[in-house]
Amino acid sequence: MAAVKVHGPPLSTAVSRVLACLIEKDVPFQLIPVNMAKGQHKSPDYLKIQPFGQVPAFEDEHITLFESRAICRYVAEKYVEQGNKGLFGNNPLTKASIDQWLEAEAQNFNPPSSTLVFQLAFAPMMKLKQDPAIIKQNEEKLSKVLDVYEKRLGESKFLAGDEFTLADLSHLPNCQYLLSWTDRGELITSRKNVERWWGEISSHDSWKKVVEMQNAALPGEA
Amino acid sequence: MAAVKVHGPPLSTAVSRVLACLIEKDVPFQLIPVNMAKGQHKSPDYLKIQPFGQVPAFEDEHITLFESRAICRYVAEKYVEQGNKGLFGNNPLTKASIDQWLEAEAQNFNPPSSTLVFQLAFAPMMKLKQDPAIIKQNEEKLSKVLDVYEKRLGESKFLAGDEFTLADLSHLPNCQYLLSWTDRGELITSRKNVERWWGEISSHDSWKKVVEMQNAALPGEA
Repeated sequence: MAAVKVHGPPLSTAVSRVLACLIEKDVPFQLIPVNMAKGQHKSPDYLKIQPFGQVPAFEDEHITLFESRAICRYVAEKYVEQGNKGLFGNNPLTKASIDQWLEAEAQNFNPPSSTLVFQLAFAPMMKLKQDPAIIKQNEEKLSKVLDVYEKRLGESKFLAGDEFTLADLSHLPNCQYLLSWTDRGELITSRKNVERWWGEISSHDSWKKVVEMQNAALPGEA
Repeated sequence: MAAVKVHGPPLSTAVSRVLACLIEKDVPFQLIPVNMAKGQHKSPDYLKIQPFGQVPAFEDEHITLFESRAICRYVAEKYVEQGNKGLFGNNPLTKASIDQWLEAEAQNFNPPSSTLVFQLAFAPMMKLKQDPAIIKQNEEKLSKVLDVYEKRLGESKFLAGDEFTLADLSHLPNCQYLLSWTDRGELITSRKNVERWWGEISSHDSWKKVVEMQNAALPGEA
């Protein structure tokens, strides 16, 4: 039985970020379902390991953790000698650059992209009303962020330098949903360098496995 | 001349987070003004070091960085042997816990608290209309986040354990503004453990110095 446990559904972008990191690092794990429709993420037992009632929660030997990017940093550091060894860099300067772009993902890329995915894909599925003003505002925000990425990826193969790192990996979940589940994929494909980058990062076997897990979890395709 | 340069106004919460970290670590620095009213943060020279046109930007010897929390992690790691030596922990498990609560600040605490500060303090200063629905929604969100903190701080002296760390430090800027510049300070003072924690973290000399720098930068008090 694997020591590492991930609690949460693979369709959650935060859960899939952690799964991509674990697979990239060749770390065996157990995926433990959390039935969010039944409120299991707000149950007293679950709140003991994730006090905010969000997914994922994570366990490994002597530690429990929450927050997907903190979990990814921990996994990349603890299991540095296996799988993709450069995922979090191998010297302080590279690490700082990875950390900087990981924060750019969390602070600049994630808010507009996850809002767009929610409005354009999840809201219709959940029979919630879409808000055209919010869609427009976030499309403009994301567009500006991706203009910065386009320039950066013209100077550098990946966000933090010449290697695929946590900074790139962290973008996979929302990019995938923008392209597969919304009609705004051209935010990515209309930018030459961003499209080239997306092609490279999404072709990693680790990410393909996560997408398979997500597809298997879709209603009606289990 | 100090090797470390911080570009940006101390009244920015992201800039003041970095200043608190540098002072806590006894790292000398030069503060370089960025005249945001004149759009200096969007000038070609500035965009070379901060491509998103935000503050702060940071320089140290062979590296330039942006994103306040990435800068804080870099400073705490590079200058580990000086100032507050435990600011980013001294073993992988403590570090993971600090990182987790630093992410909780960035993802859960910062969005509603910075929105409240903007709506309640900055909007009136800038003669912008306040949005009562946004204020109500973010007050409720922040209240739920602080309920989790109240429980955590009943079990643990600081967020990541028994010591003051980056996880606590990162909360200082928005807590300070909520208490000093809005009428919603009781979000903090009505919670016994959160209030005790705020008293302890805000009494650090490093933070007092940052508040002095902020006060000196206020219009009419320079």
